[in-house]
Amino acid sequence: MSTAWTSRYALRTKGITSSQIRELLKVTQRPGMISFGGGLPAPDVFPVQRFEEACHKVLTEQAALALQYGETEGYAPLRELIASNMARYGIKAKVENVLITSGSQQALDLIGKLFINRGDRVLLEAPTYLGALQAFNVYGAEYISVPSDDNGLRTDLLEEPLRSGPKFMYVLPNFQNPAGTTLSEGRRHELVLLADRYGIPIIEDDPYGQLRYEGEHLPSLVVLDRENLRRDQGYSIGNVIYLSTFSKTLAPGLRLGWIVAPPEIIGKLAQLKQGADLHTSTFTQFVAYEVARDGFLDKHVKLIRKIYGERRDVMLQALQEFFPPGVTWTHPKGGLFLWVTLPEGLDMQALFKSAIEQDVAFVPGDSFYAKDGPGSDGREGSRHMRLNFSNAAPERIREGIRRLAAAVKSQLAGAKIHSEQPIEA
Amino acid sequence: MSTAWTSRYALRTKGITSSQIRELLKVTQRPGMISFGGGLPAPDVFPVQRFEEACHKVLTEQAALALQYGETEGYAPLRELIASNMARYGIKAKVENVLITSGSQQALDLIGKLFINRGDRVLLEAPTYLGALQAFNVYGAEYISVPSDDNGLRTDLLEEPLRSGPKFMYVLPNFQNPAGTTLSEGRRHELVLLADRYGIPIIEDDPYGQLRYEGEHLPSLVVLDRENLRRDQGYSIGNVIYLSTFSKTLAPGLRLGWIVAPPEIIGKLAQLKQGADLHTSTFTQFVAYEVARDGFLDKHVKLIRKIYGERRDVMLQALQEFFPPGVTWTHPKGGLFLWVTLPEGLDMQALFKSAIEQDVAFVPGDSFYAKDGPGSDGREGSRHMRLNFSNAAPERIREGIRRLAAAVKSQLAGAKIHSEQPIEA
Repeated sequence: MSTAWTSRYALRTKGITSSQIRELLKVTQRPGMISFGGGLPAPDVFPVQRFEEACHKVLTEQAALALQYGETEGYAPLRELIASNMARYGIKAKVENVLITSGSQQALDLIGKLFINRGDRVLLEAPTYLGALQAFNVYGAEYISVPSDDNGLRTDLLEEPLRSGPKFMYVLPNFQNPAGTTLSEGRRHELVLLADRYGIPIIEDDPYGQLRYEGEHLPSLVVLDRENLRRDQGYSIGNVIYLSTFSKTLAPGLRLGWIVAPPEIIGKLAQLKQGADLHTSTFTQFVAYEVARDGFLDKHVKLIRKIYGERRDVMLQALQEFFPPGVTWTHPKGGLFLWVTLPEGLDMQALFKSAIEQDVAFVPGDSFYAKDGPGSDGREGSRHMRLNFSNAAPERIREGIRRLAAAVKSQLAGAKIHSEQPIEA
Repeated sequence: MSTAWTSRYALRTKGITSSQIRELLKVTQRPGMISFGGGLPAPDVFPVQRFEEACHKVLTEQAALALQYGETEGYAPLRELIASNMARYGIKAKVENVLITSGSQQALDLIGKLFINRGDRVLLEAPTYLGALQAFNVYGAEYISVPSDDNGLRTDLLEEPLRSGPKFMYVLPNFQNPAGTTLSEGRRHELVLLADRYGIPIIEDDPYGQLRYEGEHLPSLVVLDRENLRRDQGYSIGNVIYLSTFSKTLAPGLRLGWIVAPPEIIGKLAQLKQGADLHTSTFTQFVAYEVARDGFLDKHVKLIRKIYGERRDVMLQALQEFFPPGVTWTHPKGGLFLWVTLPEGLDMQALFKSAIEQDVAFVPGDSFYAKDGPGSDGREGSRHMRLNFSNAAPERIREGIRRLAAAVKSQLAGAKIHSEQPIEA
């Protein structure tokens, strides 16, 4: 029927399959379903009134620009707002260091496009963000997976992998997706020093950095890196490219993210972006600027912290209350996710199916490991679930964890019977 | 300073440079400048009031969905609206045949990603849309350029290029960018028959198809192709992938385009899109749907036709009045552009500079030819200018053409003196 096309797929598309998360998004729209699956913000925190005012203002005062083609690098006032916002977290970027992207996902795609030749290795945390794997896979990346623990990436295991010459490291230091863990301050220093020693640059992905519910903000890798460089070479941004997004602080439906990098890299990325989508929607950029300006973003982030922090607490308490012994989970200090570890020998496929039948959803852990990379034999992933705590209301979180615990218990009982059978037989 | 990065660029980025058009967009924002350079719609036709109502409605009634993550394939009601809209032009696509993209440029990028291996050849019209070249270059495409004339692609020259086995053909049948020419009906039939005979599929790029100012609508290649197929294999969409956009009918600042293809191809493209930007802004999709629905799009397209048709006429008349003998131009039946051919021997760089000095801009023709491809030795491009007639108001068009004519005349005088000098010397 369309064989003229299907026989013509490029090599890079081999093995590109739809993500479990994407298919999940479809099931979870079923009524009655409690989903801990997606990474969805709570719609009740969207600042709808502020959006309305912003749309009105943009269309009344600037429609001719806001609906027109715009510059590939992004709307200058929004880039300025981002730069000055980041300055308060110590990231002293100028406008020319900021490229607006169509969501953080496009940042990952452009970085893959700019740096990855087929067969190049990328050093990753295990587990890691599956969207990064999807973005890099297309360019033929291979992976070196380095384990992480409650303090994030195991920097004590980094030297040998770095010696093997990966193209770059991809790291999520704050409230990692999927594990919810945070890279400790000591390891941050170690990481940038090792990166410097072995000449391996870092992609720092920081979608959740502002959403911290306890403890003090830790310095970004891009900040630590720059301070090292400043001593030698004056003021510049060096070996860390930093990514962030408005998806978790304003609204993901805008598809607005950004890249912070040295101007030369921004220029190259902008050229690639021009071929990829010309530029990000001028309209959403103008609207986001009007929404975020005059300190609104800060106030709003405080509100989100309060609401998500409560939801995290509700989930942690429900896990404690309902989950059977032998199951453990991370204690995230921010972000949207926590990571549950189940006893060995559980059939994750069966658990997932049983959970869906009881109208509760999660993402099985194996999605978050690079396939065929060292340190990722697939077995590791099969013991984990990623749970999102930002999207559902507190009482729904409690009910969902109750249902999920029932599914886990029934699977564990089955597994026990199953494993005891040979002995009895 | 950032050598850790710059030494790591992927091979595909070699030779990727910023387009002249992009740099131009910066100069042309200078006050007093009359720009025939970009492909910008007229801001005075943006339906601002309707956008305001749409934003209000979406944010009042559907904010929780419109600001949230959405499906990669796009907002279903918008896909339906597109499908039913295209049906009136004979394209009988269903929802599952439509993928929403972040502008038509993303459609080109995804097609490059899905089909082009390094060294694959793509058959193009000469001249062709430079955004397609930018999108395909990244994937290592090489090109077979086939000349076009006032009736579009020279189908009589196609057989030998087709026999050499290009991966696909890329064609803009209606009011081509940059030439403004339209593929005649006879050639449309020949093209799909040849595509069928040699088994070479077609990408049909149709951003301007609805913007026709004279004559009758001609059937799309995707329609002719499907009719062929229907006879043999029942109802399906076959060897033509069709692309279009709301950039020229609603507003380019939305970045909303679409791809029409068989469902299997749509599925594959959606997987690639997921890695590229997850999905296109849900907010702009909801707003565009509310703007376009209930027949508004049709009414609005009629208005655009009237306004752009007048501007085209003003430009054609001014060219006639002010331009010196020996200069020719196309007579576009629709779209946004016309194509001027200058006498041989003119220094295009000098002309461009002189025009900018006199506050009038255009795009030199060489941007629209594939580099190093057969049929494109660079000399061809250097005799042409692309002029946009949609963006400037009629009196500005007239004044701009007057200025441009003065620049052309002074360059021609210079060229004449220069070429006569050796004789006098």
